[in-house]
Amino acid sequence: MHEKLVYFDQRDRPAKVESGTLVLEAARQIGIDIQQPCGGQGRCGRCIVHVEEGRVRRRSSLRISPADQEKGYALACQSVIEENARISIPEQESIERRLVTTIKAREVALPAGYLPAQSQSLKRITLKLSPPSLDDQTDDWSRLQQALRSQADIQLEDIPLALLKKLGGVVREGDWQVSAVIEIPSPDQPQANRLVDVLPGQIPEDQPLWGLAVDIGTTTVSVWLVDLASGRVKAQTAEYNGQIKRGEDVISRIIYASKNDNHLEMQTLVVDTINQLTATACKRINADPSQIYKAVVAGNSTMIHMLLGLPAESIRLSPFITTANFPPVVAAGELGLNLNTLARVDCLPGVASYVGADITAGVLSSGMEHTSKTTLFMDIGTNGEIVFGSKEWLVTCACSAGPAFEGAGVLHGMRATAGAIEEVWVHTNTLEPTLRVIGNKKPRGLCGSGLISLMAEMFVTGLVDKSGNINLDANTPRVRQRENKREYVLVWADDSGIDQDIVITEVDIDNLMRAKAAVYAGFTVMAERVGLSMGDIEQVMIGGAFGQYINTEKAIQIGLLPDMPWDSFHFLGNTAVQGAYLALIDLQARQRVNLNAAKMTYIELSADNSFFEAFTSAMFLPHTDMSLFPSIAAKNPSAVQV
Amino acid sequence: MHEKLVYFDQRDRPAKVESGTLVLEAARQIGIDIQQPCGGQGRCGRCIVHVEEGRVRRRSSLRISPADQEKGYALACQSVIEENARISIPEQESIERRLVTTIKAREVALPAGYLPAQSQSLKRITLKLSPPSLDDQTDDWSRLQQALRSQADIQLEDIPLALLKKLGGVVREGDWQVSAVIEIPSPDQPQANRLVDVLPGQIPEDQPLWGLAVDIGTTTVSVWLVDLASGRVKAQTAEYNGQIKRGEDVISRIIYASKNDNHLEMQTLVVDTINQLTATACKRINADPSQIYKAVVAGNSTMIHMLLGLPAESIRLSPFITTANFPPVVAAGELGLNLNTLARVDCLPGVASYVGADITAGVLSSGMEHTSKTTLFMDIGTNGEIVFGSKEWLVTCACSAGPAFEGAGVLHGMRATAGAIEEVWVHTNTLEPTLRVIGNKKPRGLCGSGLISLMAEMFVTGLVDKSGNINLDANTPRVRQRENKREYVLVWADDSGIDQDIVITEVDIDNLMRAKAAVYAGFTVMAERVGLSMGDIEQVMIGGAFGQYINTEKAIQIGLLPDMPWDSFHFLGNTAVQGAYLALIDLQARQRVNLNAAKMTYIELSADNSFFEAFTSAMFLPHTDMSLFPSIAAKNPSAVQV
Repeated sequence: MHEKLVYFDQRDRPAKVESGTLVLEAARQIGIDIQQPCGGQGRCGRCIVHVEEGRVRRRSSLRISPADQEKGYALACQSVIEENARISIPEQESIERRLVTTIKAREVALPAGYLPAQSQSLKRITLKLSPPSLDDQTDDWSRLQQALRSQADIQLEDIPLALLKKLGGVVREGDWQVSAVIEIPSPDQPQANRLVDVLPGQIPEDQPLWGLAVDIGTTTVSVWLVDLASGRVKAQTAEYNGQIKRGEDVISRIIYASKNDNHLEMQTLVVDTINQLTATACKRINADPSQIYKAVVAGNSTMIHMLLGLPAESIRLSPFITTANFPPVVAAGELGLNLNTLARVDCLPGVASYVGADITAGVLSSGMEHTSKTTLFMDIGTNGEIVFGSKEWLVTCACSAGPAFEGAGVLHGMRATAGAIEEVWVHTNTLEPTLRVIGNKKPRGLCGSGLISLMAEMFVTGLVDKSGNINLDANTPRVRQRENKREYVLVWADDSGIDQDIVITEVDIDNLMRAKAAVYAGFTVMAERVGLSMGDIEQVMIGGAFGQYINTEKAIQIGLLPDMPWDSFHFLGNTAVQGAYLALIDLQARQRVNLNAAKMTYIELSADNSFFEAFTSAMFLPHTDMSLFPSIAAKNPSAVQV
Repeated sequence: MHEKLVYFDQRDRPAKVESGTLVLEAARQIGIDIQQPCGGQGRCGRCIVHVEEGRVRRRSSLRISPADQEKGYALACQSVIEENARISIPEQESIERRLVTTIKAREVALPAGYLPAQSQSLKRITLKLSPPSLDDQTDDWSRLQQALRSQADIQLEDIPLALLKKLGGVVREGDWQVSAVIEIPSPDQPQANRLVDVLPGQIPEDQPLWGLAVDIGTTTVSVWLVDLASGRVKAQTAEYNGQIKRGEDVISRIIYASKNDNHLEMQTLVVDTINQLTATACKRINADPSQIYKAVVAGNSTMIHMLLGLPAESIRLSPFITTANFPPVVAAGELGLNLNTLARVDCLPGVASYVGADITAGVLSSGMEHTSKTTLFMDIGTNGEIVFGSKEWLVTCACSAGPAFEGAGVLHGMRATAGAIEEVWVHTNTLEPTLRVIGNKKPRGLCGSGLISLMAEMFVTGLVDKSGNINLDANTPRVRQRENKREYVLVWADDSGIDQDIVITEVDIDNLMRAKAAVYAGFTVMAERVGLSMGDIEQVMIGGAFGQYINTEKAIQIGLLPDMPWDSFHFLGNTAVQGAYLALIDLQARQRVNLNAAKMTYIELSADNSFFEAFTSAMFLPHTDMSLFPSIAAKNPSAVQV
């Protein structure tokens, strides 16, 4: 086949590709990385390019108007090269670096009554070996085993080859005094003990013993650097997951990863993100990454699969099966993590394809496993996972909330970065909005909390009715109809940071209603399944980064959260990384995560007949059954009539 | 520093090296591999080169006469480049490929009463999994674990990441029927069970399950390809150890390996040898190396260290300590062995630096662990290891016999390849020799059995006296004195394959006497230590490739073997590879190797005061104490007088 030459932007060097090559692969060949927020499905329209010379063959042009197609616009993930071409790439939405300052300052309290010596799974022990002689020719490894038995009551059966290779040098360099780093994951199972490192001589007691708590969020990865000797968090970093450019939600990423050998790229992207965060954390406090001996990782099942390099395709397809809910502990070196090569990487267990280790970690850190109160735990982010129960029982389900609350699927949705509108107030009479914007910037769009706030305000002021229809009779120029679609203008072009009106459309509202209805339907189905009603819920615990910014009142107004007194709600922040941290510093806590995961009864909503009915009932603001929302009914009696 | 140009032989391209570079390193830079039989110590003189232009700086010129030094001869391992030079490399003794035909033909009997099902540590099990559904979303790995428990009563705790990566594809490709390859090293320890492979669908019962028995000899590596399902040996190959060019004995190799990163090269050399042998064996019977799931390896402690990439320096230096006598089981992929990447490589345990896994394997295959007869087991090759005992007790020691019996340290010594004289008869009256030569070739030198034979004949015919002095008064032109050294001409130049006389010198005889005296002194010290005398020995078992070719009568005549009836001697062949084979096919046998190794009391001769005395007493033909050799005394009364 004849090679085609493709010139991109101002680059002098063309890509040389065979006919039939995707535009984005041609671009990658010369080092241009075109983002694929939908994972290359041709759905999001955000990999649009302009073909200036030559022609490409379009498999699909979703989201590109016929007029724009005529002008040469095409989707890089859906168009293939068939002749020489010159292509320009419009500026893409850049993935901004998040500021980590707020996280940096936070103090993390140790669990009440925490005693490192009784809780640590990783220990560093100094041993004095008797030097060998012609009368005692015991081999080095047996000598170390004997010293561990007699001086530390630790039985070790096995030694990694990498440590055996250096053992002879280490014992002699330390003049027969050595420090051994040992993982003791369970005091009852001596055969599970693992030697992680041997170092010459004695290490000062006050020298930290490093561990890492990691949460791999679909959007954000968080890393805490922990001194395991004291249990103290010494540095915290967070950053966007490097996989974002290959899909904004897990489904898009699975689709992307399933093509060719892309799962290797996905693994590299998340490993690189963790490595960068670890390096930053280490640099801040002058720690050596090669002395990090353990990592405990939380994350949803797809993220854990991708970290381990496991294919995730079966997670996406019915009947939604993971490769492993309880992944094996692996060595950092096997994954390419820049910790000590032999550092044990312990991925917490999940329960199902869509109730992962982020949730089991969240349950641990929420403490709901200890409470006698009937508790609703939820983590609403890209997906919505819910756990219902108490110390006696736990049920869980996942709602396909979709990424609406993270700003995707909404025309002017965006992530919670500078320029995002995070809170809206609409004046009852003038219907004029007042905004709070993140950072000192002109508004550029709405993040999740802004969307909830805006919906609630529009509902309360009558700008939308209970079915989510925008009221065209409202007395404001901000309500209008364009191309048969109704919308409300939140920011006029002159005041916006994007040189166009920032609006919310009926389509956006419908997407948001679907998201909130899915979550609420999850609550009701779970409650029904265990024979309880929503009124039996005694407290609500909300985890996830997004949960931190929800305005409870407004979330109740739109029917996302159940109608309960505000002091029944507890916002816990990133419960996934907190849970990973607890499991890292406390082996009893680590064991409880396994017990909890085994105990959690998973309800597959897609197989549940009552779910569709519950979802339909929740597709109103706040709900069809207003008796579930007495506080709203009292304020806004009109909403009672359906 | 300024680069120097060094031209070698006819090569057009010079090596470009810094001043101070060793000649052999310069040669290696352009792909010329100069052999270093002494490991680069400057002792053997066999890396001699001729400097034709320019000069090199000589650190040592041992074994090169001043006249030859004047002519430009130098040792490649001891001379460094200081200016541009042109160097020629004389033809080196090539390491011939050994013919494997004799080995190929040999039938290996199964152990008496062998029942594969009860003895196998590796099993392939076909399982039927229930397909997942929305009502049963069990993850793939748990589903496999459950099936193993319910269908095969096998508990598996862990899965290697590499298998987890392919598990989802395998179970679906096999439509929920899979074959699992599992190592069950001990029925009592389910936590030691290991998953080695998962394959889609059912594998026909008659398809072999491959394993490898390996013996890494200092000189020769042997590989047996075994069908573990039946226990049958299906192919056998043997070849020189690729490390030979870096040292002929273990000491030379340790010295070589200790320089720079040479231990990596030594590992690669032996791994390459095993890979080649495995590939040859597989090709012969059309087996796929990636379906070899297990290897059991015997070899002396240095060879095992080098295979595993462990530094061996402390083996060489007093107090002679190994890194590990019981090495951990590792994956083939960790070593670079071209078997299945996850194949378990189980190196048998050793007892001490100079009593290694070749001896514990030998004890296993000799069966001395079961006998009530007081037994002497010996493996005489590059080193001499001896085990003394019965089913009740075992003592062992190593004699620094040196490589004399392998042809090294003897002027016309050579390995047992084509052209080697393997048997000699000297006529009592004419003192003319009759020879048997390996292959259809002119004689080129003497191998070990030839040397023993020659010494015995010379002693019996009076050509040497009991002290090893050559009798200058003997009535034959074959005895002569050159440069003050006495020698016996075995082959005149006209009849030899090397265009010069093949002789044995008094120095050679002294070296051989030291070797045999060391072995015999080992016997007596061990016997004394356990309160027995040589007369208490009831049988002698001789292992090692060399052992196969020893003429018992002649070995007794020179005092290498104890004076016992010939039917007390059992020649067992390569007991190391036989032991590895037994340990491979029979897990009870494998466990016995560990028990034997732990039971064997090691006697360090270099720390034993009685050894030197015993050695001195044995420095006669056959021995100072002729009462130990009654059959010789009877035939040759003159030898009784010392």
